[in-house]
Amino acid sequence: MSILVVGSVAFDNIESPSGTVENCLGGAATHFSLAASYFTDVRVIGVVGKDFTPEHEAVLTGRGIDTRGIEHADGLSFHWTGSYVKNLNEAQTLGTDLNVFQAFDPKIPEAYKDSGFLFLANIDPVLQARVRSQMPSVRMVCGDTMNYWIADHAANLAKVLRELDVLLINDSEARMLAGESNLVVAANKVLAMGPKTLIVKHGEYGATAFFSDRSFPDVRATHPFRAPALPLAEVVDPTGAGDSFAGGFYGYLASQPELTPAVFRTAMFYGGVMGSFAVERFGTERLQNVSREEIEERFRLFKEISHLEYSGA
Amino acid sequence: MSILVVGSVAFDNIESPSGTVENCLGGAATHFSLAASYFTDVRVIGVVGKDFTPEHEAVLTGRGIDTRGIEHADGLSFHWTGSYVKNLNEAQTLGTDLNVFQAFDPKIPEAYKDSGFLFLANIDPVLQARVRSQMPSVRMVCGDTMNYWIADHAANLAKVLRELDVLLINDSEARMLAGESNLVVAANKVLAMGPKTLIVKHGEYGATAFFSDRSFPDVRATHPFRAPALPLAEVVDPTGAGDSFAGGFYGYLASQPELTPAVFRTAMFYGGVMGSFAVERFGTERLQNVSREEIEERFRLFKEISHLEYSGA
Repeated sequence: MSILVVGSVAFDNIESPSGTVENCLGGAATHFSLAASYFTDVRVIGVVGKDFTPEHEAVLTGRGIDTRGIEHADGLSFHWTGSYVKNLNEAQTLGTDLNVFQAFDPKIPEAYKDSGFLFLANIDPVLQARVRSQMPSVRMVCGDTMNYWIADHAANLAKVLRELDVLLINDSEARMLAGESNLVVAANKVLAMGPKTLIVKHGEYGATAFFSDRSFPDVRATHPFRAPALPLAEVVDPTGAGDSFAGGFYGYLASQPELTPAVFRTAMFYGGVMGSFAVERFGTERLQNVSREEIEERFRLFKEISHLEYSGA
Repeated sequence: MSILVVGSVAFDNIESPSGTVENCLGGAATHFSLAASYFTDVRVIGVVGKDFTPEHEAVLTGRGIDTRGIEHADGLSFHWTGSYVKNLNEAQTLGTDLNVFQAFDPKIPEAYKDSGFLFLANIDPVLQARVRSQMPSVRMVCGDTMNYWIADHAANLAKVLRELDVLLINDSEARMLAGESNLVVAANKVLAMGPKTLIVKHGEYGATAFFSDRSFPDVRATHPFRAPALPLAEVVDPTGAGDSFAGGFYGYLASQPELTPAVFRTAMFYGGVMGSFAVERFGTERLQNVSREEIEERFRLFKEISHLEYSGA
């Protein structure tokens, strides 16, 4: 089934120990869409400025992504400047220019209305809720958020959380949202806020899914599930790794006829796979050019590095 | 085969969010021995003072551990005071009284000489080397160390590292030893210092094994192996979790007739299992009283939470 994603399409200036890039295509919706496009049809809602050229749009349409929901506004696109020179595990934001994103009011094209899966990337929870309410009959809603909304927009975020089938956040966001340092206790508190299932991303250590008794009937489990990450000797650019994880995870889920525990677990592995590709090059370079064969090979590698049965390497 | 372990047998004062205990039996060799005792015969070399009573010794002998190598010296036993109130993931040391441990000169009883597996717990690398040299024909040597020896006793530690089949340390120790923040690069640098295989413990995120081309022929692998940890809603006392991991890992290895990749991976899972029990109660309380059935049940749980195939829970 098709995925509808709403979120940022942006340009990034990034410095990391591997070098520096300027004005490379980025944004949560971009990374998510590219990663998900290897598994299913993806439709994007976002807003860009005059600096977003047909060549930029071709990066998305070249992967079969439907960009009719990307609004072209006067002004410049959202622009983020960040550095990983001091810490590869956490971006230091040097500048955020919202530009046309400041007045973003997501509109859902009629052709998108039959999307079965909705992904609410990290944007203002007011906008997330607005999109959600216009897609009442989607099969699944998955969402992301960040420390800024958790700290300063709690009431708005609370409304979104109640509508989510899956919330995807990282360790520090889960602990912050729950006000609790133990991850299991924090996860249970977050699940009590609404999300039926919670996936906590641990960066280089993988990700853990926690299930509530309201999780999809066929996936519901007493115990969490832990998916590995691939130990990498070089991380060129971590920007978008979490969105790429979400894209691989949700893209695989949406591509499957049935939602079973094995499908859910496999989706988490594909999330890790797409995240591991994303960080190998600056911006979207690697996600644009990975092959389905490379994805399958890396999926086998993820199994190889985490399963007791050894198949040889 | 039997394991010979040399290390500290101590008393601990511990405070954690769950409470406070005084003078509870601790020390690396104690935690290691108890964890390993569920899998194979264990022999301990250490030194204790007059405060170490027959009741304390019975904790070890009650698990079938050979304590003939524990020397009884005049004075008090090694005493450690630590707190986890501020951070459950890292002990804050409030006091270290070496006492009789200061003059520790490990002597290997004749009856221990046929031990097939040697574990050098975290002690002065000079002592680790001395014990190693007296056990020239052991089948395998595994060792631990800590930031203090890495920072201030590098030359002595370097000699020990060259003798190790397996080095077991945590993330920050691996990064410190290599002077490198990327874990894969750090692991390769550490392997170049001598250990044939490196296991890096990630606390609540599990552990990763890195193999060199000098790793045991049957275990050698191109890719690392990642074992999970169990997400726990309450960690009462993390003291000795790493030593319990080592005991479960090494105990299982020593109990197996052959060293295969599957055996090595299974050993890492048992390491996680024993670490997860250790932290459930203060001191050695849980490790003294766990049943073999509980160990097997938790092993199945570790597989359940990390493997794609879902068996139901």
